[in-house]
Amino acid sequence: MSPAEWERLLLSATEVVWKRVAPLAKRPGRGRTVGTGAAGDRTIVADKLAEDILVRALAKVEGVGVLSEEAGALGRDDGGVLAVVDPIDGSSNFERGIPFYCTSVAIVDGDSIDDTVVGVVRDLFTGDVYAARSEKGATKNGRRIRTSAKVDPSEAVVGVDFSRSPPGMVSALEPLVHGVKRQVHLGANALELCYMAEGKTDAFVDLRGKMRVTDFAAANLIAREAGAEVTDGGGRELDVRLDLEHRFSFVASANAEFHRKVLALCGSARAGVAPG
Amino acid sequence: MSPAEWERLLLSATEVVWKRVAPLAKRPGRGRTVGTGAAGDRTIVADKLAEDILVRALAKVEGVGVLSEEAGALGRDDGGVLAVVDPIDGSSNFERGIPFYCTSVAIVDGDSIDDTVVGVVRDLFTGDVYAARSEKGATKNGRRIRTSAKVDPSEAVVGVDFSRSPPGMVSALEPLVHGVKRQVHLGANALELCYMAEGKTDAFVDLRGKMRVTDFAAANLIAREAGAEVTDGGGRELDVRLDLEHRFSFVASANAEFHRKVLALCGSARAGVAPG
Repeated sequence: MSPAEWERLLLSATEVVWKRVAPLAKRPGRGRTVGTGAAGDRTIVADKLAEDILVRALAKVEGVGVLSEEAGALGRDDGGVLAVVDPIDGSSNFERGIPFYCTSVAIVDGDSIDDTVVGVVRDLFTGDVYAARSEKGATKNGRRIRTSAKVDPSEAVVGVDFSRSPPGMVSALEPLVHGVKRQVHLGANALELCYMAEGKTDAFVDLRGKMRVTDFAAANLIAREAGAEVTDGGGRELDVRLDLEHRFSFVASANAEFHRKVLALCGSARAGVAPG
Repeated sequence: MSPAEWERLLLSATEVVWKRVAPLAKRPGRGRTVGTGAAGDRTIVADKLAEDILVRALAKVEGVGVLSEEAGALGRDDGGVLAVVDPIDGSSNFERGIPFYCTSVAIVDGDSIDDTVVGVVRDLFTGDVYAARSEKGATKNGRRIRTSAKVDPSEAVVGVDFSRSPPGMVSALEPLVHGVKRQVHLGANALELCYMAEGKTDAFVDLRGKMRVTDFAAANLIAREAGAEVTDGGGRELDVRLDLEHRFSFVASANAEFHRKVLALCGSARAGVAPG
């Protein structure tokens, strides 16, 4: 299939996920656990439902493999593409009723995250859909999106994920948090990257060393295609493996000039913080 | 007017605000500045529109005074009530297109925030409305709400506002941020207090010494009526004056046991952090 065909398939499959999952958010049983995902998170009913819908849609294409937070890795034929899936990013928000969670699918045609050819992230509360094809730009609901041109930290809105961060990391990020207009954390990193891609925020920083490729691959392409800089905490190219066990850190910013400033403000947290 | 009558008036007036303001969020001019509010914030078109709607509705009642972030203090007759108004809390989110902002009105029948008899906060994205009457409990869309029973910090979702915090405060709050499951900040404190009131989060901490009564009065009553503990950073009763200039800090938690733990985790930040 061509990237354009993949994009259409994912737009359609994630729309089904949205229509099936959104009503569950209003029901008391939304937090019921039905098993444990391949990556160790609790799998809730909605995660399973979302994954089933996506896997069913993907399985119609011959040779495609699936790497999913819930199901683990499913067979990929030689030369076939790999679909990197997070059925629900922001499960904890979903469980608590905070209306900020999404579904994320990337199509990787090769052995590296740099071979991502299509990324689709759908907000499962509003139904808004972010999509990108490699070298074709990024869209939200079909309209081209671009990152912000903000370069002044004191005017910037920056997402920072501190959840279960290593000891010392909060203090190490004081210069960043103190230096920007507003630190936000909405609790679904893929969707927060898309917010940055469309100019709602100016950077997103996650130096905990806990990010997974499933949460990241689609939003990474969308952010880059919208103009973002995305590197590791040291400003180096990211080394993200197509592997559920691999965890990493990253910094994403709206533009190259702002990225340099964000990295500088990350100070000693950039290289990771030694466990206390 | 009785508290029940005031509540009905505010439910209706804030519904008008929602219906008029929501469409503006989709227009490019939403961030256009038209003046400066009495509290020094930038007033944007939507703020002015929201305030005009609320002031018009309130002015129909004889003797009512209005204390509003945008307009400042408007005349209150002897023995009349004071309406404490924030036309849009989360203006910065509104400007950037982050769907998390609200309108807030409290009716105070006396000289202290403890004399708040009615509080209404309406989410201006979803239209959801939170309301409380003194000693009558709190509701969301007419249904009774209650805070969570969470007492274990490692399972808790806690909102922390670090925006323009004094130097040293981020580091001082490391034990809290590190000790909880997830730190969130959505960017509209009144609405985040209502999230805690309905059990979506477990605490909200703002020790910057920058909170204003206009953002706080309505949500404070809603949170307390839903079961929350609300104190200053030292666990003492809040001293909040009905005055636009007065700024303060507070800690709000879902229940008394969790509140003690949150206060302990706030450590040296509790008493405020000396400016560097």
